[in-house]
Amino acid sequence: METRYELIVEYLGYGYHGWQTQPQVKTVQGTLERVLRYVTGHERVRTLAAGRTDAGVSADAMPVQLILDSPVDTETMLPKLNDHLPTDIRVIFWEKASGSFNILESVEWKMYSYRFSLKKLVGPRAAPFVAGVAGPLDTQRMEACAALFEGNHDFRAYGYQVPSDAETERMIRLSKLEYHIAPGNGLPRLWEYSVMSAGFMRHQVRLMVGSIIACGQGQLKLA
Amino acid sequence: METRYELIVEYLGYGYHGWQTQPQVKTVQGTLERVLRYVTGHERVRTLAAGRTDAGVSADAMPVQLILDSPVDTETMLPKLNDHLPTDIRVIFWEKASGSFNILESVEWKMYSYRFSLKKLVGPRAAPFVAGVAGPLDTQRMEACAALFEGNHDFRAYGYQVPSDAETERMIRLSKLEYHIAPGNGLPRLWEYSVMSAGFMRHQVRLMVGSIIACGQGQLKLA
Repeated sequence: METRYELIVEYLGYGYHGWQTQPQVKTVQGTLERVLRYVTGHERVRTLAAGRTDAGVSADAMPVQLILDSPVDTETMLPKLNDHLPTDIRVIFWEKASGSFNILESVEWKMYSYRFSLKKLVGPRAAPFVAGVAGPLDTQRMEACAALFEGNHDFRAYGYQVPSDAETERMIRLSKLEYHIAPGNGLPRLWEYSVMSAGFMRHQVRLMVGSIIACGQGQLKLA
Repeated sequence: METRYELIVEYLGYGYHGWQTQPQVKTVQGTLERVLRYVTGHERVRTLAAGRTDAGVSADAMPVQLILDSPVDTETMLPKLNDHLPTDIRVIFWEKASGSFNILESVEWKMYSYRFSLKKLVGPRAAPFVAGVAGPLDTQRMEACAALFEGNHDFRAYGYQVPSDAETERMIRLSKLEYHIAPGNGLPRLWEYSVMSAGFMRHQVRLMVGSIIACGQGQLKLA
């Protein structure tokens, strides 16, 4: 009998071509489904996430819906799953959900964080976690730019191939640039931009970050 | 005129198939030589390291010998080189060496560090830096095992395809297991094994580490 599960997955996206399964390249979904097939012994394993992370993007707690053709004992299977997953993917929660469980409806908000540092300061050990950005940067202006995104706005200009009749208004609950001193990974300091909303359009977060950096580099002015 | 240079290279080996250039796969040497060709404009770029790191192994300060067909201005070229290298490879030193400079003779010792933690405690963010080892481990026995390697010993059993007439004695200057609390990367604690010598045979360090872990797991007894 078809059975639904909820999983919480953590992964380091560095070295993966994003979440979604694609032919020829290593993806998180492809790796997770392959190991799930091995561990459950089921041939048909279908996973669905509420969002698709791009290449290199990591996840701290990503909810994933899993559908199997018949029930399995998740309690004994969870440690086995983690034993067989590569060390940069961990499943921290795996439980049976109701038959009507729908990941797309049950995720209320998503938060993305983007960490960057001046390029010269980023050592190789920070590479999986921090982007290098060419300076000098006017970070006060970047903070002001980030704050402008908060609230209800039409993000049509931040979408990718948006159909003219698409709904492009989004409510941004948080859009904030913060400075961290001694964050680890051999970095003395870094900036972190966090953005939170019930949903984003494809490429929206990436283009918002691009605008904030362009502001800091003086290529874009605040209206 | 053929000119020799010394480089100090730092890199994160996670995601690379080791140092040495190989067809089809991404290696540190292949990436470095490609960017050096682009930045110097020279077609012939030859690099040589005193040792070859395996897939996944990182380097904190690896000396590399570079031979170009004619001199370049390293001072202006060094920042350009780092701008074009991927963020997980950095060159922190690049200077002209004498015409007789030989990296194989000028490196006096090498030090390898191997960091591990109990598999359950390793989160995905630690994956590029820390190996997960299946416990329980008798770490006191591992410390004793590590200490046995110090000094002058015949390491024939720790070599790979060793010819019968090869010199297999090595002087190990340091062989030590240490415990670190709160080392960063989201890890509460980890063990680090460090080993230092003028030279190692192929696979020697890997096999020494394997023995120490086998000791901790009770699969190997101290003589």
